[in-house]
Amino acid sequence: MDTQSSLATVSGWTKGLPLTLDSIALSEIGAKSWNILREDVQFPAAILRSSALDQNSKIMRKFLDSSSAWLCPHGKTTMSPQLFRRQMDDGAWGLTVATPQEIRVARHFGHKRILLANQLIGKPAIRYVLDELRDDPEFDFYCLVDSVDCVNQLVEQIRVHDVRRPLQVLLEIGSAGLRCGCRTQEEALRVARAVRSSDSRLVLRGIEGFEGLFQFQAQPGQDNPVTEFLKILLEIAWQIEKERLFSGEEILLTAGGSNYFDLVTKAFSSAALTTRFQVILRSGCYLIHDSGWYARVERERQDRMKEAGNSLPKAEAALEVWTYVQSVPEPALAILTAGRRDCGHDAGFPVPLKWFREGLHTKPVALGPEYVITALSDQHAHMRIPAGNILKVGDLVGLGISHPCTTFDKWKLLFVVDDDYNVTSAIETYF
Amino acid sequence: MDTQSSLATVSGWTKGLPLTLDSIALSEIGAKSWNILREDVQFPAAILRSSALDQNSKIMRKFLDSSSAWLCPHGKTTMSPQLFRRQMDDGAWGLTVATPQEIRVARHFGHKRILLANQLIGKPAIRYVLDELRDDPEFDFYCLVDSVDCVNQLVEQIRVHDVRRPLQVLLEIGSAGLRCGCRTQEEALRVARAVRSSDSRLVLRGIEGFEGLFQFQAQPGQDNPVTEFLKILLEIAWQIEKERLFSGEEILLTAGGSNYFDLVTKAFSSAALTTRFQVILRSGCYLIHDSGWYARVERERQDRMKEAGNSLPKAEAALEVWTYVQSVPEPALAILTAGRRDCGHDAGFPVPLKWFREGLHTKPVALGPEYVITALSDQHAHMRIPAGNILKVGDLVGLGISHPCTTFDKWKLLFVVDDDYNVTSAIETYF
Repeated sequence: MDTQSSLATVSGWTKGLPLTLDSIALSEIGAKSWNILREDVQFPAAILRSSALDQNSKIMRKFLDSSSAWLCPHGKTTMSPQLFRRQMDDGAWGLTVATPQEIRVARHFGHKRILLANQLIGKPAIRYVLDELRDDPEFDFYCLVDSVDCVNQLVEQIRVHDVRRPLQVLLEIGSAGLRCGCRTQEEALRVARAVRSSDSRLVLRGIEGFEGLFQFQAQPGQDNPVTEFLKILLEIAWQIEKERLFSGEEILLTAGGSNYFDLVTKAFSSAALTTRFQVILRSGCYLIHDSGWYARVERERQDRMKEAGNSLPKAEAALEVWTYVQSVPEPALAILTAGRRDCGHDAGFPVPLKWFREGLHTKPVALGPEYVITALSDQHAHMRIPAGNILKVGDLVGLGISHPCTTFDKWKLLFVVDDDYNVTSAIETYF
Repeated sequence: MDTQSSLATVSGWTKGLPLTLDSIALSEIGAKSWNILREDVQFPAAILRSSALDQNSKIMRKFLDSSSAWLCPHGKTTMSPQLFRRQMDDGAWGLTVATPQEIRVARHFGHKRILLANQLIGKPAIRYVLDELRDDPEFDFYCLVDSVDCVNQLVEQIRVHDVRRPLQVLLEIGSAGLRCGCRTQEEALRVARAVRSSDSRLVLRGIEGFEGLFQFQAQPGQDNPVTEFLKILLEIAWQIEKERLFSGEEILLTAGGSNYFDLVTKAFSSAALTTRFQVILRSGCYLIHDSGWYARVERERQDRMKEAGNSLPKAEAALEVWTYVQSVPEPALAILTAGRRDCGHDAGFPVPLKWFREGLHTKPVALGPEYVITALSDQHAHMRIPAGNILKVGDLVGLGISHPCTTFDKWKLLFVVDDDYNVTSAIETYF
């Protein structure tokens, strides 16, 4: 098991690497003295600002120190075992993942406590997890259930498997029109009872929700729908406790994407349960942050937390995608050499942050808000530019992104840089 | 140079592979007797239907046989060297690519004639191409220019490089509000004259446009904007010829994505030029086709071609993404185990095509148009289902996709299957 990634070799054709390499050991990249602004890498290139990672990591530790919550960061954001390790070193309780393939990656890199924040579907995936549970007594695994069908399919596989310990499940609570999860208290209890009827093949170890799905439902002047959802979730937990359907001396209450971990912690910490419980946050994007959606919601969170007398320092966007100006075909339009294959666009287009021209600059210069990405093609960004535009063909432009998850998955390799854009190391992703 | 990919080994954690593999040689996958419907692979999985590839390949050959055009297929669609080879075996003139990294991949897999359908930007990329031209006399390379700045930056690098043969460029023609390319005849001539002034460091070998960008501008009752654009492009070619700014005994006229290759061939074949010319199409998606956007525009093309007395058989969608039903949390909603990290969504959501349940079915059964994907999360598809829905947790659902390019780039490995969904081989991608 290669927990260090130190032996990983990256193919020379990998996006971002200089075109002249045959291959390179991941661990050697930091020693190459490459600099982004000197064009030592090939553009487009994705970079992570080391100082931003440090800052964001520190903020989350500060938050956790002031609360009783634990972090089980969602690995799906970066799918980078090197960043997983950093998060574990930061004191994470375990690692959250989204799919069986992500479990597979996490296991390959030695993770012992994994929360699949989804139902475990399909006979081969169930059997794989049962094999892992049988072969490694230290493997502490949790997955979600939200239907009697789902419970029955897990039980059916365990029945014919010699795993010899129960599979730990969490009951997922959802809401009408959204994603997975039980819609009503009755349904939740029905599923919890099905778990109880499994002869300890399954054990109900807690309750789960993803409050992030409610962020688009907020209406001015109304109660925060996130808080309302968390209340419903706790009420169901209370009913389940009343029916003694939870297993174990301590149960898990888990929610918390990267936007509302403060509200989740506040609501869950004061849960009126008699069973001991741990509050588990699953924030995935906090370490990377962004220049779009997450930056906007952070401002709301900061306002909320300031009101509550518990303010946090400002997070910094760690991820940038650097490109060339490819063409300035019209006075108000520039085309950049990165497109939707390089930057996610599900939560807004990338944001032009900085530019750099060799000879003219010694460090990147900020681009004002009048530089706007208005469209992405597969391999191009279309940027509106102001009258008196200063950019010309061959200039470097650094783009901020909106929503780390869908930009990370477009890169096999990201360069870690210091504040002078020296490449100090590189990270691999396993999507 | 590994033109067969036969030595490639795929890591066991690769999306789609069974979870129990450590690694597998690409060439061994076909001998494993895996079947998609038997759940021998891990879902989500991307598959290519072999019979559809055969059919689409045959259609393009039939079209080319009936015309004087050549195909230089856009490799960016699949970035799969195995499919590139198939396209070369089908008689392709060369390979089109979009970025320097894609040139690098194509060179690694032995391609000798490469058309970069973009400007070649950045000193390191220019130097890389000049090195390749110097070291391989058989390397036949073309790239686009659309500004004097771009011409000057190429010339500047050639000046200090001992490449000893001219860099072949094509003049890109664009249109207001769209992407790269000269907007006016005056500008085009200015750029062409700059090429001529380069002391044969650059030679102008033809003219280029991408008519596909006009597909959203069509207005009922008006002249087809694609045809209008092609007329403008030919008029500029004629002006350039008049000024004797082209080099070589035969020049290239190139356009033609996967939607309008009939219009491009018709317009270009009758170009009123005295210089000999070759018509080069760059269709990238024809081999894969789809179940969304390309399927719709194919119907228009078929109508056009039938009118012109030159009809083609119907293309078939080769690419499907197979998933599980993860949850049916409401009577009208099912959640599937594939999301925007598995299927592109820039040209419409994926289309539920078929479902399969072991024990109930012996082959996949069609899903009607009342099954509709209404949203994608990162790792989930949200599907509206009709009253009387038949699907339950654990059923397999095969999704058709819209726009092959942005689904291909979400997979490192795609399974090639026969009509019974037996896996007969696998292809790798190099994004």
